[in-house]
Amino acid sequence: MTELDKTARTTVRRAASRGSYDRDEALAILREGLIAHVGLCTDSGPVVIPMAYALHGDDILLHGSVASRLLKTASSGVQVCVAVTLLDGIVVSRSWFNHSMNYRSVVAFGTATLITEPAALDAAFAQLVEHLIPDSAEMARAPNRKEAGATTMLRLPLAEASVKARRGPPEDNPADVDGAAWCGVIPMHTAFGAPETAPDVDDGVAVPSFATDYRR
Amino acid sequence: MTELDKTARTTVRRAASRGSYDRDEALAILREGLIAHVGLCTDSGPVVIPMAYALHGDDILLHGSVASRLLKTASSGVQVCVAVTLLDGIVVSRSWFNHSMNYRSVVAFGTATLITEPAALDAAFAQLVEHLIPDSAEMARAPNRKEAGATTMLRLPLAEASVKARRGPPEDNPADVDGAAWCGVIPMHTAFGAPETAPDVDDGVAVPSFATDYRR
Repeated sequence: MTELDKTARTTVRRAASRGSYDRDEALAILREGLIAHVGLCTDSGPVVIPMAYALHGDDILLHGSVASRLLKTASSGVQVCVAVTLLDGIVVSRSWFNHSMNYRSVVAFGTATLITEPAALDAAFAQLVEHLIPDSAEMARAPNRKEAGATTMLRLPLAEASVKARRGPPEDNPADVDGAAWCGVIPMHTAFGAPETAPDVDDGVAVPSFATDYRR
Repeated sequence: MTELDKTARTTVRRAASRGSYDRDEALAILREGLIAHVGLCTDSGPVVIPMAYALHGDDILLHGSVASRLLKTASSGVQVCVAVTLLDGIVVSRSWFNHSMNYRSVVAFGTATLITEPAALDAAFAQLVEHLIPDSAEMARAPNRKEAGATTMLRLPLAEASVKARRGPPEDNPADVDGAAWCGVIPMHTAFGAPETAPDVDDGVAVPSFATDYRR
């Protein structure tokens, strides 16, 4: 097991038994997720932006949109906090206080830098497409220079990070346990439906397997 | 339509057609979501924390855990940015650049204050339980004073906020449109499975309808 950097800000304090610093666990969560919530500090306070992301080796690649203007001014890098959270279930206990959720999350800190070098930008684009729609890359046109130039792509090394997760049944206070009272977990997951073909596709065009078999 | 406050930081700049300031739309998204990503600025940089939340009138209630220590020192209030994002689909285009996701999101800014007054704390707890597990409140014990005291509950008025959403099929560049090439949307949603009864529940105890019929 390779460990992530345990620093003052990645040390899990509350419910510490739920925390870990296992890089493989972090990577598994990051591979499954589709959206990262990226926090940064501005002159007028904190900002959180949902961003598409991908992994490239031990880097998190972030694909900005709203933040472009903000991030492009920070060519020397910007301190960010990146959170990816997967929800696995609603935990129903016998007391409100012990209601909870089952989840797996990664929180990573560090300095994100803008990717501008053309080859690195092309590689980052390819990783993002592979992350979002695996095995689809050759079915669509890669970015031209104008499109690449219009894209804010950031790199954050996955180093100072922690994993937090809750799994399993509710944990009631002993005094609350009553075998006649129901409690348990309502499992949840992200489900993908039958692909909806766009109106400008000819009748009879087969839906590719990367779409019909899509799953995380 | 009641409008949210449009300020410099809530003005949607990128893909502005996707933005709105409709309070009802924001409330509908917030009612459906289960987790908020809350950003705040600390001495060592930005922090993003996944938190359970609920609505109470026009307030967002945030139920802290990891951030307790940090937030409890900020009794005068702390500047936060709260993002709730719902993912609705993977948008597959004919070019990598136009791949996208369908989503609905709310981003709210403001000063969150700690709820400490006992009656307000009780009411906030009730809202949180109703948000997480609707129609279940009477099936579980409400918090005692010790539990309430151990809880970090924050209130953020829903005022300076914006909605951003993408809906519908891919939008390819005209030069890329080719009727013989498939493109479209892979719809996604959060699915809830059959409740898993906890091991300490007696055999034969019926699963309540709030669990069997759970949906958002």
